[in-house]
Amino acid sequence: MIKGKLKRDIHFIIELDKMKSILRQTSLIDGSRKENDAEHSWHISVMAMILHEYSNLPIDLCKVIKMLLVHDLVEIYAGDTFCYDKEGNASKEARELEAADKLFIMLDENKGKELRNLWEEFEEGKSNEAIFAAAMDRMQPIFSNYYNNGGTWKKHNIKKEDVYKRMAPIKEASDELWEFVTNMVEDAVDKGYISG
Amino acid sequence: MIKGKLKRDIHFIIELDKMKSILRQTSLIDGSRKENDAEHSWHISVMAMILHEYSNLPIDLCKVIKMLLVHDLVEIYAGDTFCYDKEGNASKEARELEAADKLFIMLDENKGKELRNLWEEFEEGKSNEAIFAAAMDRMQPIFSNYYNNGGTWKKHNIKKEDVYKRMAPIKEASDELWEFVTNMVEDAVDKGYISG
Repeated sequence: MIKGKLKRDIHFIIELDKMKSILRQTSLIDGSRKENDAEHSWHISVMAMILHEYSNLPIDLCKVIKMLLVHDLVEIYAGDTFCYDKEGNASKEARELEAADKLFIMLDENKGKELRNLWEEFEEGKSNEAIFAAAMDRMQPIFSNYYNNGGTWKKHNIKKEDVYKRMAPIKEASDELWEFVTNMVEDAVDKGYISG
Repeated sequence: MIKGKLKRDIHFIIELDKMKSILRQTSLIDGSRKENDAEHSWHISVMAMILHEYSNLPIDLCKVIKMLLVHDLVEIYAGDTFCYDKEGNASKEARELEAADKLFIMLDENKGKELRNLWEEFEEGKSNEAIFAAAMDRMQPIFSNYYNNGGTWKKHNIKKEDVYKRMAPIKEASDELWEFVTNMVEDAVDKGYISG
């Protein structure tokens, strides 16, 4: 007999399909279209597998990956908020909290709590794992913009100081990754992708 | 100073963006477009997080997730092979082996080997983790087809016996998941989505 819990799990899994239709501001590197949340979450999870050796701090890689896989789930109901949109970011917390209440309650208590805790830890940004996860989340759009002729930086005339503010977790997460991305961003300024 | 190894890692990460343009046969549940490999890999990785409690066998969840994140990477060069395409599947192994040689060599030896081993273990399908991972890989298109009026089952007039053959790893992986999907497939036969 199929138990109610499994039915709820499957219902949740089906709801997750909507992540494939939540568009981000960033485009694919080939510029063909905007990236969606499911693709982004996959990419940064594999990035964590590849780059975890550069972490300044000891991290539980498995926890980082789980965090990255679910860090954007609330956007199914709250939508994507462009990181440089000041107005959108003012209402982001309230919208995402409401979305989290709606989403995680679909699962049974233990499982819903596990996923919600991962999301909250990521949002809080204090644990070693949350810092490294945030670094992955911030690095990936740097690559997309850099290799896509400036992408959203250029489109929205983003200032260097705002890019650096957004990159802060990378500095905390890894000296080597920080050196790499600062070189890339300085080069992007030289190329006119970011306003100096 | 940026080391050569990190440069190779980043180059590999940028190459991974192509996974977002490898289209599968299966559509999104809303039927709006075909799903791509990056989205599929993300979805089944989260599925493993939600469903691992139903595994018949003891599994290392972290390994399952890593396996699922990288199981389709070779398709960047080998392309997606429709599971019910007999001709395509005859040449699949050779094409994917060639792709693996090209792909994993981009990373340094240890990291390339780690990823290749995960892919090979998945393909071999013998370890507990590979069996559970394959079950996730087979379940997700069942949901997509079922909730999308028969999807690729109906489009390609797929026979019930071929669907069951494809589902075999789910039977091995979990009694509860097997009961769930067999109910779903039998219902799909009744609805005329699968040819009886």
